[in-house]
Amino acid sequence: MANSESVDPNGHRLFLTPRRFEYTRKFEQPDELPLSNWIVVRIDGRGFSKFTKRYHFEKPNDRRAIDLMNSAAMETVRGLVDIVVAYGQSDEYSFVFHEDTTLFERRAHKLVTTVVSTFSVQYAMQWPTFFPDQPLTEPFPTFDGRPVLYPKLKILRDYLSWRQADCHINNLYNTTFWAMVQQGGQSPTEAELELKGTLSADKNEILFSRFGINYNKEPQVFKKGTVIYRDLSTTASTLEDARSELEKPTSKTQAEKERKRKQKATLVAEHVDIIKAA
Amino acid sequence: MANSESVDPNGHRLFLTPRRFEYTRKFEQPDELPLSNWIVVRIDGRGFSKFTKRYHFEKPNDRRAIDLMNSAAMETVRGLVDIVVAYGQSDEYSFVFHEDTTLFERRAHKLVTTVVSTFSVQYAMQWPTFFPDQPLTEPFPTFDGRPVLYPKLKILRDYLSWRQADCHINNLYNTTFWAMVQQGGQSPTEAELELKGTLSADKNEILFSRFGINYNKEPQVFKKGTVIYRDLSTTASTLEDARSELEKPTSKTQAEKERKRKQKATLVAEHVDIIKAA
Amino acid sequence: MANSESVDPNGHRLFLTPRRFEYTRKFEQPDELPLSNWIVVRIDGRGFSKFTKRYHFEKPNDRRAIDLMNSAAMETVRGLVDIVVAYGQSDEYSFVFHEDTTLFERRAHKLVTTVVSTFSVQYAMQWPTFFPDQPLTEPFPTFDGRPVLYPKLKILRDYLSWRQADCHINNLYNTTFWAMVQQGGQSPTEAELELKGTLSADKNEILFSRFGINYNKEPQVFKKGTVIYRDLSTTASTLEDARSELEKPTSKTQAEKERKRKQKATLVAEHVDIIKAA
Amino acid sequence: MANSESVDPNGHRLFLTPRRFEYTRKFEQPDELPLSNWIVVRIDGRGFSKFTKRYHFEKPNDRRAIDLMNSAAMETVRGLVDIVVAYGQSDEYSFVFHEDTTLFERRAHKLVTTVVSTFSVQYAMQWPTFFPDQPLTEPFPTFDGRPVLYPKLKILRDYLSWRQADCHINNLYNTTFWAMVQQGGQSPTEAELELKGTLSADKNEILFSRFGINYNKEPQVFKKGTVIYRDLSTTASTLEDARSELEKPTSKTQAEKERKRKQKATLVAEHVDIIKAA
Repeated sequence: MANSESVDPNGHRLFLTPRRFEYTRKFEQPDELPLSNWIVVRIDGRGFSKFTKRYHFEKPNDRRAIDLMNSAAMETVRGLVDIVVAYGQSDEYSFVFHEDTTLFERRAHKLVTTVVSTFSVQYAMQWPTFFPDQPLTEPFPTFDGRPVLYPKLKILRDYLSWRQADCHINNLYNTTFWAMVQQGGQSPTEAELELKGTLSADKNEILFSRFGINYNKEPQVFKKGTVIYRDLSTTASTLEDARSELEKPTSKTQAEKERKRKQKATLVAEHVDIIKAA
Repeated sequence: MANSESVDPNGHRLFLTPRRFEYTRKFEQPDELPLSNWIVVRIDGRGFSKFTKRYHFEKPNDRRAIDLMNSAAMETVRGLVDIVVAYGQSDEYSFVFHEDTTLFERRAHKLVTTVVSTFSVQYAMQWPTFFPDQPLTEPFPTFDGRPVLYPKLKILRDYLSWRQADCHINNLYNTTFWAMVQQGGQSPTEAELELKGTLSADKNEILFSRFGINYNKEPQVFKKGTVIYRDLSTTASTLEDARSELEKPTSKTQAEKERKRKQKATLVAEHVDIIKAA
Repeated sequence: MANSESVDPNGHRLFLTPRRFEYTRKFEQPDELPLSNWIVVRIDGRGFSKFTKRYHFEKPNDRRAIDLMNSAAMETVRGLVDIVVAYGQSDEYSFVFHEDTTLFERRAHKLVTTVVSTFSVQYAMQWPTFFPDQPLTEPFPTFDGRPVLYPKLKILRDYLSWRQADCHINNLYNTTFWAMVQQGGQSPTEAELELKGTLSADKNEILFSRFGINYNKEPQVFKKGTVIYRDLSTTASTLEDARSELEKPTSKTQAEKERKRKQKATLVAEHVDIIKAA
Repeated sequence: MANSESVDPNGHRLFLTPRRFEYTRKFEQPDELPLSNWIVVRIDGRGFSKFTKRYHFEKPNDRRAIDLMNSAAMETVRGLVDIVVAYGQSDEYSFVFHEDTTLFERRAHKLVTTVVSTFSVQYAMQWPTFFPDQPLTEPFPTFDGRPVLYPKLKILRDYLSWRQADCHINNLYNTTFWAMVQQGGQSPTEAELELKGTLSADKNEILFSRFGINYNKEPQVFKKGTVIYRDLSTTASTLEDARSELEKPTSKTQAEKERKRKQKATLVAEHVDIIKAA
């Protein structure tokens, strides 16, 4: 792309001389992320409370919407083999790059925008599969993202646990709230007011005594969110792989072999406790 | 989204306590871009030389592909009124936010990922309009992006001039190269070898004497790329608006009025000299 | 300093092999400050309210202490010719590097620590000249510092005006407060209480009516602080030089000539309005 | 220091209104260093090869100069209790802050400039003790500094090992070089040429066969540099304390108690292997 020139053999001063302007390239700042840190790229739906209303998402959870998020995330993980694990819930997803990744020389914007662009396009392109009756119209759904660095594996696990705990808290609240509104006939304001200050046990009690709902029997995908990782052995059916993956040092000699193995590996999506695992 | 709790009224220690993990949020680093700097978000197609081959883009320029880039950029500018001007050529686009923008508190990743996500989804969703005969298949096209700061208006103009000069240089080269190959029957290697070290005048001469092509009469969109800006007055038909836009201080009192005016304004795409204008 | 080796010719594995550890160098992060920005290095005395008590500084202003600050700043400016102007008051000093400086490749920590180290040592070494009766004892006075970038000359001027306005406001307050305490016999608490919420005019009135002090006739150095710049023409006696200095583009061809001229130039310290000048 | 005002009760527009300029404060960028990282502040003498010639430092090592470096470092460690260990050799010193330090909210410039200012002033003030016959004259010695972050204890140890290996390599080279020049009567150029490409064993051989010097019997302080740490138990006489110090989590409840204990602790300077210890 760089066939630069600045002289005109006929003696005319060339008006378009890239060299004269090329100094502007020096204003780009380096953004390599520090070494030996786990890189989490977390994406969030932009303006999704409005978006979910426009498409009449079911409350408290719309299974089609969650499946779409997970499917878009699967393709994102498939395309970027340096992602070792991903966790999603609601309209957010966290993609974890290995602490030793050298993808894009660890440049922050390259990493984040590649994840965001891939996920966004997947979400839009897969929409018809999950919402066949509602074509996507403008304004289209979009996602923002940012990187967060975790210098220790333990802290990375605590981060993932934090997101999963957030999932649990919100889902218990939302499940109770919408039961009160949809089945109990309360107004949203009444329900909100009654729930203010309640603890988990209170909400479990409301669900069970008033609506016969045993929260523990709600679908795992709603309560736990979704963990995606590569199933590197055909027999593996647990989280063990993702876990050992997290700890494995990537020696350069095996790098290419590993890459191929990862590209072939089937992806697994599970709805299990990160916290217990950690 | 923050209905946190950590006590279990029955005396059981709650396993899921977000507070215990919430400290991980403190690992997020601030990324507000410095004040009084023009913010350019530049996006580039990822792996587009492979992508253009897969979809048989015409050489040296595929008008459908350029129109799609411009249409996706138009929608991106429409959705983000703080963008004062955008310039695109080939598979890249530069979106310029006003030096005083406060959008997303000037947070770098928010700004960049919002542009990238919006543009990427637009590109994918508008694809069938421009390539009705070739459905988009996996792997889908994606874009990366990064911010660059320009502390002075003059330097911003030089940046845009640099991108436009790059467009000119590449287009003259590509027009000549493909004429030699497609019409002149030379092999790509031969053409490349012959063009090595040639200046603009030489290429113009080859085009004219061998193929009867007057480069000056080639379409402006190929030679100049595309400038997008808001036509804030109904009569305006030149770049003047974009230019005065660039210099105007945004006082906070007019901000909301301005915003509405911008949202209503029609967008203009022109293929004119930034360099002469600067 | 890099005579590295890692093989022992006798076949012994060398214990001390720098190469094995040299990867740790890659953890250094780049810190070049962005181009075309005025670089202010602002230093502040650490724990100076305690320090001034220990050495019985006169209140509201100790002329010896101010002269020492200015003298240390003069030597700092003398040693770093890329500093175009400096402004100081109380225990702080702002050193302004030209927006186009390439000193230390604009590396933030190099620039800041060089200023801080030079100023700190000058302060300590010159102490006996200004406080001949009080030898400096542990803990010695120290200074911290930080860089601030100003993308436009106008904003840099506003920054300097801000520091000078701060000088005025504090000096008027302190002059009034200490007159009330030292001459008026009020307790510090009483004086503080009475001054709470008063405006400039009130303080001027207290000074004049109670103590016969016309604030306008107080020494300029107390009211305005100190501006240091190079007197590049022998005839110049105003701030003009510093001003034109601020605007002058430094072309690389003249760089070395300029450097020598600056090293020879006499330094001027004035106590004048930056604000009026701006 | 903030007695701001902007109205003149007599109706005059005040010229000095800090509020008008206070916006310039917003140009300061946050510089908090990321959590859970060891912070190394490394300082280096500025222009010390010239400085050591001016004061006729003995070659290859000037014991007075090394003792002065160590003494200045001791006082720096004493004054900043969050420093857990320091390592120095030649004209450089590395000060290590605990990975959980909250000193100055981990602000990079505060940490670095405080270390640099303290060390620089100590060096200048203690100079007469170590060089009683040579008063310090202008230009005074100064130091620059920068922060480096290490996310794991192991990497921090490798960093320190790197600096110590560097000490060994340089000292062996310098010892041999100066023996050849001072005792062997070779010219510096001859000695340099002969040493080019030699390995450790070669230099040991030259030292022993030509000058009867057994390098292993050279002073430890020259071969190993200096490690400084707090002797937190009165009986401790090894590096154990520094090591356990490195691993100890600092719970907030004990923080103040710890601080006092550290301030009382005697400082130890040793010349031992970091590498073996690691």
